[in-house]
Amino acid sequence: MGFKEDRAEKKEKKLHDKYMKEAIKEAKKAAANNEVPIGCVIVRDGKIIAKNHNRRNKDKSVLSHAEILCIGEACKKTHDWRLEDCTMYITLEPCQMCAGAIVQARIPRVVIGSMNAKAGCAGSVINILQMSEFNHQAELIKGVMGEECSAMLSDFFANLREEKKQFRRDAMEEMEQIMDRRGTVPAPSAEPSTAAPENESESAEPENK
Amino acid sequence: MGFKEDRAEKKEKKLHDKYMKEAIKEAKKAAANNEVPIGCVIVRDGKIIAKNHNRRNKDKSVLSHAEILCIGEACKKTHDWRLEDCTMYITLEPCQMCAGAIVQARIPRVVIGSMNAKAGCAGSVINILQMSEFNHQAELIKGVMGEECSAMLSDFFANLREEKKQFRRDAMEEMEQIMDRRGTVPAPSAEPSTAAPENESESAEPENK
Repeated sequence: MGFKEDRAEKKEKKLHDKYMKEAIKEAKKAAANNEVPIGCVIVRDGKIIAKNHNRRNKDKSVLSHAEILCIGEACKKTHDWRLEDCTMYITLEPCQMCAGAIVQARIPRVVIGSMNAKAGCAGSVINILQMSEFNHQAELIKGVMGEECSAMLSDFFANLREEKKQFRRDAMEEMEQIMDRRGTVPAPSAEPSTAAPENESESAEPENK
Repeated sequence: MGFKEDRAEKKEKKLHDKYMKEAIKEAKKAAANNEVPIGCVIVRDGKIIAKNHNRRNKDKSVLSHAEILCIGEACKKTHDWRLEDCTMYITLEPCQMCAGAIVQARIPRVVIGSMNAKAGCAGSVINILQMSEFNHQAELIKGVMGEECSAMLSDFFANLREEKKQFRRDAMEEMEQIMDRRGTVPAPSAEPSTAAPENESESAEPENK
């Protein structure tokens, strides 16, 4: 009996890993576009019916979170606003909007890679997915390929910080050269007034996607 | 001083009423399509930049709540995922998804017509719009044209219940006629097994839109 259970568990874990890998692939597409790497897939009857990644800056729309894009795709594909026989895989714990959309769409099962301590709404700040006051609660499976999902985000923000530093160094150097040519030296406290690279001020906050 | 304040207050109330009337107009379009009557407008610099109504059944998409449609439109119009200088007018207190979208879009002010005791997420079940744990809180103005907004919903659900009863009566009558022709009488407990009118089972739940 224990052996059979073990085998079933292993099989399920393997399946979760398989779909989370697809969500990670999506997240990497976001990173390639300088967007916070968050990916999502929705699975139904063993098939991926929707996959997408965070495109908030590219689309200039708050609705372009990976989960919302996937839910829209899945509704279109199933011709139904209820996604009652679907499982959602997400690389990062959802925000309040996406958690709300999951409950509204009645998605019964959500598999999460990495948790988001500062802004996650599936247990970190609040657990919108499992509030008894609402007419739907989702089963939650956390930590699937959690290290990979976390590392992907940490790497992205570390790169962003490095780019930011480099940008400041370049701007300062350029300013010094201009001052040199003019025969003046900038005060040590002076900061270059150049604009920050597009997108950086928002993306540097992991809690806000 | 008091007089000036009074005047400013009256002017603001008049403005709120004006925009809420537009949201009510939208809600009535939903009712005309047999959708739960919920309407929304987004105002920026004294202009309506987005207006829409609940179209969840028509569009077969959970994302077709009035607020989400409006937020999508407003982002498109402003070319920005942040709606930081907008006011949203909604005839009914938002659900968890729409309240989440408002916070994510950083809408600073939300004006609500009628509250939704069973499922509202701007104070009734939970107040997602004003959680100190998140990086944005919205100012809330409640009860603007509240009676009109409430009556509109009550009327819609009363009509729906009446239609449902009439549908059952018609189905029962039809069944009796068939039985009569066959020379049998249906048992008193027998219920016609006809399908309920489309959309009714969902729409009869005001808390779920």
